[in-house]
Amino acid sequence: MARSNNAGAKAGAAGAEQAKNTASERITKREEDYSRWYTDVIAAAELADYAPVKGCMVIRPNGYAIWEKMQAALDRLFKETGHVNAYFPLFIPESFMKKEAEHVAGFAPECAVVTHGGGKKLEEPLYIRPTSETIIWSMYKKWIQSYRDLPILINQWANIVRWEMRTRLFLRTTEFLWQEGHTAHATYEEAEKETLQMLEVYRTFAENYMAVPVIPGVKTEKEKFAGALRTYCIEAMMQDRKALQAGTSHNLGQNFAKAFDVQYLDEQGKLEYVWATSWGVSTRLVGALIMTHSDDNGLIVPPKLAPLEVVLVPIWKGADEQAAVLERANKITADWKGKFSFKLDDRDNYRPGWKFNEWEKRGVPVRVEMGPKDLQNNNAVLVRRDTGEKRVVPQASLTEEIQRTLERMQADLFNRARDYRDRYSKAIYDYEQFKKEIEDPDKSGFFWTHWCGNRQCEDRLQEETKATIRCLPRIETGVVLAPEGKCLMCGTAAKERVVIAKAY
Amino acid sequence: MARSNNAGAKAGAAGAEQAKNTASERITKREEDYSRWYTDVIAAAELADYAPVKGCMVIRPNGYAIWEKMQAALDRLFKETGHVNAYFPLFIPESFMKKEAEHVAGFAPECAVVTHGGGKKLEEPLYIRPTSETIIWSMYKKWIQSYRDLPILINQWANIVRWEMRTRLFLRTTEFLWQEGHTAHATYEEAEKETLQMLEVYRTFAENYMAVPVIPGVKTEKEKFAGALRTYCIEAMMQDRKALQAGTSHNLGQNFAKAFDVQYLDEQGKLEYVWATSWGVSTRLVGALIMTHSDDNGLIVPPKLAPLEVVLVPIWKGADEQAAVLERANKITADWKGKFSFKLDDRDNYRPGWKFNEWEKRGVPVRVEMGPKDLQNNNAVLVRRDTGEKRVVPQASLTEEIQRTLERMQADLFNRARDYRDRYSKAIYDYEQFKKEIEDPDKSGFFWTHWCGNRQCEDRLQEETKATIRCLPRIETGVVLAPEGKCLMCGTAAKERVVIAKAY
Repeated sequence: MARSNNAGAKAGAAGAEQAKNTASERITKREEDYSRWYTDVIAAAELADYAPVKGCMVIRPNGYAIWEKMQAALDRLFKETGHVNAYFPLFIPESFMKKEAEHVAGFAPECAVVTHGGGKKLEEPLYIRPTSETIIWSMYKKWIQSYRDLPILINQWANIVRWEMRTRLFLRTTEFLWQEGHTAHATYEEAEKETLQMLEVYRTFAENYMAVPVIPGVKTEKEKFAGALRTYCIEAMMQDRKALQAGTSHNLGQNFAKAFDVQYLDEQGKLEYVWATSWGVSTRLVGALIMTHSDDNGLIVPPKLAPLEVVLVPIWKGADEQAAVLERANKITADWKGKFSFKLDDRDNYRPGWKFNEWEKRGVPVRVEMGPKDLQNNNAVLVRRDTGEKRVVPQASLTEEIQRTLERMQADLFNRARDYRDRYSKAIYDYEQFKKEIEDPDKSGFFWTHWCGNRQCEDRLQEETKATIRCLPRIETGVVLAPEGKCLMCGTAAKERVVIAKAY
Repeated sequence: MARSNNAGAKAGAAGAEQAKNTASERITKREEDYSRWYTDVIAAAELADYAPVKGCMVIRPNGYAIWEKMQAALDRLFKETGHVNAYFPLFIPESFMKKEAEHVAGFAPECAVVTHGGGKKLEEPLYIRPTSETIIWSMYKKWIQSYRDLPILINQWANIVRWEMRTRLFLRTTEFLWQEGHTAHATYEEAEKETLQMLEVYRTFAENYMAVPVIPGVKTEKEKFAGALRTYCIEAMMQDRKALQAGTSHNLGQNFAKAFDVQYLDEQGKLEYVWATSWGVSTRLVGALIMTHSDDNGLIVPPKLAPLEVVLVPIWKGADEQAAVLERANKITADWKGKFSFKLDDRDNYRPGWKFNEWEKRGVPVRVEMGPKDLQNNNAVLVRRDTGEKRVVPQASLTEEIQRTLERMQADLFNRARDYRDRYSKAIYDYEQFKKEIEDPDKSGFFWTHWCGNRQCEDRLQEETKATIRCLPRIETGVVLAPEGKCLMCGTAAKERVVIAKAY
């Protein structure tokens, strides 16, 4: 758009825009109201918006770009472990849902149901997939005859609908995007190995890409996936000390093979039921990312998942300086191509300070500032988004310095989040003390303790404290807790170690 | 899986497998029954399968891998032209659908409708998106205030549901995958430019990646998108001489902006309605790919979209030969890494002939055979999937020769398809002659002629011949036809040139 012949109107509009942005996009401080801070960060970075359909969200381009980076990394990890992608229908006949008793009990109440199609009432209602085990195993029945057809290692990227009562952008929405792996195996051992392999893939992704430290563990019977033999999970601590389940991997045993009568001829010619796994992560991870790293100035994205890693903001007064600074800026950024993603913000209708603020709230990891004085001295100023640290760097070593900073920031974000989690993790042995501390903003967090294994104690814990058993942990995090002890709730001998926290 | 200690069972199973494959996966010849040939090719290559829900399909890994290659290429072309991805909800409130009169008339009859969610009847039924204009423009109303918010250049990759009566794998299914671009502009001219730009992106993709020649053109009023000002399309000829609409790009005018009251303040401070475009291609393209290139032996995929470009099938008798051939094969393929995608098929439970047939029907562009004699002579045999041409090539120049063959094959497939289309394209001026020729297997194809522009003649054409006006072409293909003439149907003076054909 040609605007140069309309400088008056332009300046006026720019001023208005700036006023609008500062007014409507003020970010509440975390201390004031964590939950509001979270939605403010999302609004300020334009990651998502509320849709006109209850509980649904629109993932805006800035948010979707992060999800695309996540998808690319995960998809690579899945393919490296031998998986292929496929696509199964959105619709699941009601009768299919009902074939696995626990499954239908767990999912049917939160399903959206299609009753009409093409202007007519359907003979059988169709459920919109809340997860795809049933439709997929109805197909595996067609595809699996002998041991030679196994294993099947399929993943699907898809949208999912679960009718949620209380929703929150990214964390819990009626429709969300996810991937769901569904594998079929000849033996229990192979299925268990796959389940654990994918748990490890999720841990790797969370820690090495998202810079979010997680506790891998096993869910209790109460919390496991409806229809699974056993559910593994990764649990992360958010900045408000609440836990967030960031991914699950299920050993489904032979439950779905039996429900859909999927048997295979083994090498000895004997018929056996097939063993199954499923595993998934969703757009909820974007919420986890925000709540782990971001600050009162807005979004912080780890460099490996940042759609834009570096922004260069040139500073000038008047046309001569502008020309000189932009010429140098173009020379400098020419060297950046193929090394990292960047943007030269050469808009002349915004002031530098406004641009700094803009890119800050959008979470760009590194900002480079360069004005006429820097030009003279052959320097530039490099600013880290997470620490705010400013450094004067010679232009000659700028590219290298940016790359080093991106790497350091990726590592620091992880270490900082891990230190934070560990600082608010502790062993606890006394239920009354626990009840006090879980409500104390200075002490709440992850509590490691023992549990007798009874559902009664688990229910009581939740009723009395709103905290839940997040998992039976499968790693050590530095919290000292004996392998066995007494159940926190009932005091009887307990063989299980558990991590307890309030959760999203 | 360790099978070496069970050679008897293994051989037996392998024999059974081979028998099963040949029996169930015999491909009907195109001459015999083109429609059956099409589904046979899909079954033999394991591209897709029928789902248990009427009209739905499962896209199997081999088919999905082609779609992923298509997505990657298209996504790159979209981003190069300034577009970003986002995600909007699956559900559209009934009241939204009704806001644009033509739109609801066109789409509502083929919608699937959700009436229940979370166990309760909904206050307002939700339509599953048959296309997303309405939900997206309800959001654009929130996002667009001034000319500074324009243009918006958003694309979405999503699933779509249209309740189809007669379905066919890939070509017409109740649920399908697609991308839909939705852009918002300040002026008519900008919107028209975008519409034509995306038509050109689709033409580029169809011809340069899919090797499918297309005719870009304009749809008639009757055939345009419900709610558009004007619909552009690309039309391709399949091997049975029928046309297939492979992509559409719509100039939506201000229709959706008016329906959703989306106005912007222009630079002079005046309120104006926003101008819109939308454009999409779908998994239907996989069907177009199959029907353009494949032959009686199965699938043929152009190299640029082939998930697997080269397969090396080693040939041996006995363990000594096996070891020697595989050693050399591993050395040779080491040089292929990063140059093209390949597989060394070293399975020892299938005979080479069975493997040749297997990769042939899966459409792998280049097969390399290498046995003990080739080893001695430092040669290999290179076989092209499309022509069947076999050539002995020195191992030293094999990599280079494969790359050249892939390029040549990509170009040849396009040229062959274009020659075929041109051979069966002609100008026609006599309606009676046309009626005969469109039914004559030796003469049917694309007919270029004149049309008076009246809906009556268009309807009559379809009623009497089942052929339709595919488009008002915007290119020349070598068919000689004057710019004006007499309407094929009514004989009055006609200003429009049209391409007529039977279509999918």
